[in-house]
Amino acid sequence: MTLPARIFSSDNTAGASPEIVEAVSRAAAGQAQPYGADDLTAGVRHRLGEVFEREVDVLLVSSGTAANALSLAALTPPWGSVLCHRDSHINNDECGAPEFYTAGAKLVPLGGEDAKIDPGELRAAVRHKAGDVHSVEPSVVSLTQATETGAVYTPDEIGTLGSLAEEAGLRLHMDGARFAGAVAALGRTPAELTWRAGVDLLSFGATKNGTMTADAIVVFDRSLTPELSFRAKRAGQLAAKTRFHAAQVDAYLTDGLWLRNAAHANGMAARLQDGLKALPEVGLLGVADANIVFCRLPRQVTEGLLGEGYVFYHDRWEPGVARFVTSFATTEADVDGLLAAVRRYAG
Amino acid sequence: MTLPARIFSSDNTAGASPEIVEAVSRAAAGQAQPYGADDLTAGVRHRLGEVFEREVDVLLVSSGTAANALSLAALTPPWGSVLCHRDSHINNDECGAPEFYTAGAKLVPLGGEDAKIDPGELRAAVRHKAGDVHSVEPSVVSLTQATETGAVYTPDEIGTLGSLAEEAGLRLHMDGARFAGAVAALGRTPAELTWRAGVDLLSFGATKNGTMTADAIVVFDRSLTPELSFRAKRAGQLAAKTRFHAAQVDAYLTDGLWLRNAAHANGMAARLQDGLKALPEVGLLGVADANIVFCRLPRQVTEGLLGEGYVFYHDRWEPGVARFVTSFATTEADVDGLLAAVRRYAG
Amino acid sequence: MTLPARIFSSDNTAGASPEIVEAVSRAAAGQAQPYGADDLTAGVRHRLGEVFEREVDVLLVSSGTAANALSLAALTPPWGSVLCHRDSHINNDECGAPEFYTAGAKLVPLGGEDAKIDPGELRAAVRHKAGDVHSVEPSVVSLTQATETGAVYTPDEIGTLGSLAEEAGLRLHMDGARFAGAVAALGRTPAELTWRAGVDLLSFGATKNGTMTADAIVVFDRSLTPELSFRAKRAGQLAAKTRFHAAQVDAYLTDGLWLRNAAHANGMAARLQDGLKALPEVGLLGVADANIVFCRLPRQVTEGLLGEGYVFYHDRWEPGVARFVTSFATTEADVDGLLAAVRRYAG
Amino acid sequence: MTLPARIFSSDNTAGASPEIVEAVSRAAAGQAQPYGADDLTAGVRHRLGEVFEREVDVLLVSSGTAANALSLAALTPPWGSVLCHRDSHINNDECGAPEFYTAGAKLVPLGGEDAKIDPGELRAAVRHKAGDVHSVEPSVVSLTQATETGAVYTPDEIGTLGSLAEEAGLRLHMDGARFAGAVAALGRTPAELTWRAGVDLLSFGATKNGTMTADAIVVFDRSLTPELSFRAKRAGQLAAKTRFHAAQVDAYLTDGLWLRNAAHANGMAARLQDGLKALPEVGLLGVADANIVFCRLPRQVTEGLLGEGYVFYHDRWEPGVARFVTSFATTEADVDGLLAAVRRYAG
Repeated sequence: MTLPARIFSSDNTAGASPEIVEAVSRAAAGQAQPYGADDLTAGVRHRLGEVFEREVDVLLVSSGTAANALSLAALTPPWGSVLCHRDSHINNDECGAPEFYTAGAKLVPLGGEDAKIDPGELRAAVRHKAGDVHSVEPSVVSLTQATETGAVYTPDEIGTLGSLAEEAGLRLHMDGARFAGAVAALGRTPAELTWRAGVDLLSFGATKNGTMTADAIVVFDRSLTPELSFRAKRAGQLAAKTRFHAAQVDAYLTDGLWLRNAAHANGMAARLQDGLKALPEVGLLGVADANIVFCRLPRQVTEGLLGEGYVFYHDRWEPGVARFVTSFATTEADVDGLLAAVRRYAG
Repeated sequence: MTLPARIFSSDNTAGASPEIVEAVSRAAAGQAQPYGADDLTAGVRHRLGEVFEREVDVLLVSSGTAANALSLAALTPPWGSVLCHRDSHINNDECGAPEFYTAGAKLVPLGGEDAKIDPGELRAAVRHKAGDVHSVEPSVVSLTQATETGAVYTPDEIGTLGSLAEEAGLRLHMDGARFAGAVAALGRTPAELTWRAGVDLLSFGATKNGTMTADAIVVFDRSLTPELSFRAKRAGQLAAKTRFHAAQVDAYLTDGLWLRNAAHANGMAARLQDGLKALPEVGLLGVADANIVFCRLPRQVTEGLLGEGYVFYHDRWEPGVARFVTSFATTEADVDGLLAAVRRYAG
Repeated sequence: MTLPARIFSSDNTAGASPEIVEAVSRAAAGQAQPYGADDLTAGVRHRLGEVFEREVDVLLVSSGTAANALSLAALTPPWGSVLCHRDSHINNDECGAPEFYTAGAKLVPLGGEDAKIDPGELRAAVRHKAGDVHSVEPSVVSLTQATETGAVYTPDEIGTLGSLAEEAGLRLHMDGARFAGAVAALGRTPAELTWRAGVDLLSFGATKNGTMTADAIVVFDRSLTPELSFRAKRAGQLAAKTRFHAAQVDAYLTDGLWLRNAAHANGMAARLQDGLKALPEVGLLGVADANIVFCRLPRQVTEGLLGEGYVFYHDRWEPGVARFVTSFATTEADVDGLLAAVRRYAG
Repeated sequence: MTLPARIFSSDNTAGASPEIVEAVSRAAAGQAQPYGADDLTAGVRHRLGEVFEREVDVLLVSSGTAANALSLAALTPPWGSVLCHRDSHINNDECGAPEFYTAGAKLVPLGGEDAKIDPGELRAAVRHKAGDVHSVEPSVVSLTQATETGAVYTPDEIGTLGSLAEEAGLRLHMDGARFAGAVAALGRTPAELTWRAGVDLLSFGATKNGTMTADAIVVFDRSLTPELSFRAKRAGQLAAKTRFHAAQVDAYLTDGLWLRNAAHANGMAARLQDGLKALPEVGLLGVADANIVFCRLPRQVTEGLLGEGYVFYHDRWEPGVARFVTSFATTEADVDGLLAAVRRYAG
């Protein structure tokens, strides 16, 4: 018997989907060409082409940080700047990976509700000191979908930001660490949420939503592929046995597993949200379109949960604020267990 | 029925050991702390401590190139030089990853038989323009064990090079992409082949010998661990679900699997070597201590093999020279099939 | 007859002090050892030792940007952060030179009045996520003396910030592009304003205050000198004919020229300030301890001045705000001419 | 009375031409726009356009190392390689500046007589592993004119190498630290020796031949100018008071001073060569087209010269080999004094 899961600190505490485990096991037999020349890797490219309704190139990498940093390096010169939300993962949680990969480009943090870039701030930033050699050159806009607070950009919102970027000659990157969650939440096509709205490169997150160690860069501007390939090798991100990354992503894309997993995670967050909403002592914060719930918790609730072995971030953004993240592996019982515990201490 | 394997181009064309596949499957269940705070990762550190008979630190990475480049970055300043063999992987096959990770250090290629650094050349190089700001500063020696030609350094040979390095104030790195093969071939302990001979950091290769996507840096100079940890994160080499890397390396180290796999691969190379030795038309080249066999093949043999679907490097180092690499997965039937084919065309 | 100078956009529009011109001319004769092994360079080190009342090392460089970026590279690892004021030159006006030289460290902008770092903000920042590999590591604090608005840090203020840095294990850099102006304004010794208050490295600005093309790094933590020397060479900042840089700085330091020049520039700013203060239409902004005056100008004044050929920054920080910078070469007639013009249009 | 100059170690031990000193003095008066917006800088661009018989762009920098490293950074991606002679300055004497500025490109050393790249070796190198992500990508060829041994490339030789580069899609850089000496030696036009033979960027050396602290990049492929401008600023190579660099180069180019200086230096080397040729104990080595003379000296001659205070490189390349470098400031008396001393000890 498994105890209810009590770790709600991140979706990366989940394991892997059974379908993905099986695919990896199957991939272990026989010989295959290394460095991406295997059939499974070709298959992933094909599947992603179907998902995005157009020909794409794909780089399989071992982490979302690598996907983001490689993408940004291909989109900005070293003297360029990356316009991003001040709460974005690339700005706060990657230990300067973008600066490392880009050879010293600068991240320019912008504000906006729900960790979405405010169009007004972006408008002011895209031409800020452009062409002035004393300042870094605005070069790329990076959006996070879903955002760090679990909100999602609509196709229109992406299009608005994408147009501002394009008109000023900047490129558009999307950090899709939770891209599946956004697609599931919005009910819009992957194409509408990316290249049709101007996205040049997508960090296609999979690890948080069911794979083990594989993420991908989806290349819409395919003129960037040779550069990305050299950069990936040079970064130690071209795996010898690529088939094992490919098997994960292939299974992830098969029969809509990626969207089912994401919809489940979102549903568990909604269930949690609904449960919390009923408690007057708890204050929900922001919109949880995807699988992240922010709320205000009374002190005794936080302490009670911690005392029972629950793991989650609290008092990190501001005192009294807690964050719960669900995943493809979260069960209704897990959520209900958490809610019952909250009720116990809130009462 | 499986056809005999016909790809002898590299040991990275093999899949993964069944024990490792099972371990990965097992690791997929339940929740675990991310970023190396899980029990499996702690276990790997413990096991490697046993293997090396001392306390070590460990970083799990996704490729040998990442292991090498991260290690070198921790051992040389940007204005330093890395003394290595001219045929080494870091010098030829990593697209400048060491230069990228070190922020522009310089690789100084040295000569020597069987891709082993010649002590005389190293002696001249370790103090070359040392302290002269017009020149890069000799900072680290990097050895490959086993070498690119399948030869191995004895503990004495490593000690000699290590002493030259140490006396001149340089650090010692070992690229152990085929470290298991060297241990198996020499019958000496991992400790004797590394830290007891002066090695500061070891790229502990596992992918070529049975794992899927996991290699490791074994840290003997543990004062380097914080720096390596920051560098790894920043390089996108700190996996979120570290347990999946750890499960691979843990199984690899369990019950001596790593040495059994390596001994098998070496044995298959010896079998191939013995078979080729009997053929007067084929000229063996160098010493194949580990799992790599170099030889001269008559043109019609090369063409005959290619015609049958064999895959191997030929005419790459010089005209008429071919290379065959065996692996943990190579069977006697595979080798005998290859030998039979060589005989058919050589006759 | 020379017309009154009408360029008040920056002190770098001035030429060079006659004493410095003569020193350069004298230095042109005969042979001298290159790359800093000449007598003039040794003399500069000696003179700076006298100025700072202790032994120092010195690197002569060709720009203040080079002095800053080299200094920061020696004080932070690539995964470190530089805590600086959001209005600082290193953050806004060097096109990412610190990021380039440090191999991708991150500048963390802090607030504070008069472009001086607020101690409260610094206190929060020095330990922010320290030791957390997901985030850049707080590594160095960089102060600008005098600040971008012409204010100066007192020794006490520097000491307060220096103590916060030191207690958290951070290093202290001072961008002294206008260091002479600060010394002249405060009447405190160079020692009190630097190493006695915890400064490790000082960008000793000279170009804005009388030299042609020479600035210096004054090294208080002399263990950094070898690293700085390699970095300087590698950056193209070790001049072959160092004597020509040295001659400039030597003359600059001789008979207190540097302080006389700075006092003069400050005096001209004070004269301008006094004149503007008498005009009710003009609103002075901030404190002009050194040679920079910020004020609000009515639109017709700005337009009138521009129409007469005056050059100065306006409407750059915010609408209606103008900046005037005086220099060692500014005359009373220049200032009075400007004031008369302002009066003409303000009336 | 001035003693004869006894330093023959390098042409960078000379001071500056009187015309250049005067120009710098004149430039010190009055106000000028900073950062290259002054009239003198515009004039330099115009003069270099005349010298090279076409429109060019110009960046004024403070050292030849900066000129080389900036140029290479604009011509190769970080994953590229720079094909150069193994004895070249960029490969041996710049402490890895090219690696720093290019963010880790690799220098590939080639052989050839008189430090000139052998066309056969270049032919093999330009396509070496091109397009293979496991290896750095051949990206730029860098020639030194005159070479480190004082030899010069003819326009035909440059054209041959330039064609090999161009056909393979590589760019062509010329390190012209002693470009004036080559022009003077060959009697061919600057245009014939550069862009007409395929050169994209020229490091136009001036410091060794009469200026103080100013070198230049002459940009023939003007599409590179924006990138070079950002890179220069970011490297600390955009001087605030550019006029002082410009004044030097302007005077250097006026009335053919640069070619007169170079012809004089070459003549002094020829005089030295002629004198040494007459001594059977001394063996001249290589061709001294420009201002560098290599020879074999008997031990007692080397020791005798050192004893008299002569300064020159000896026993650096190989035992018994000495190098003498003349400059624009070397007099006939200096050379004759040296020859007399050699004779004294050789006899």
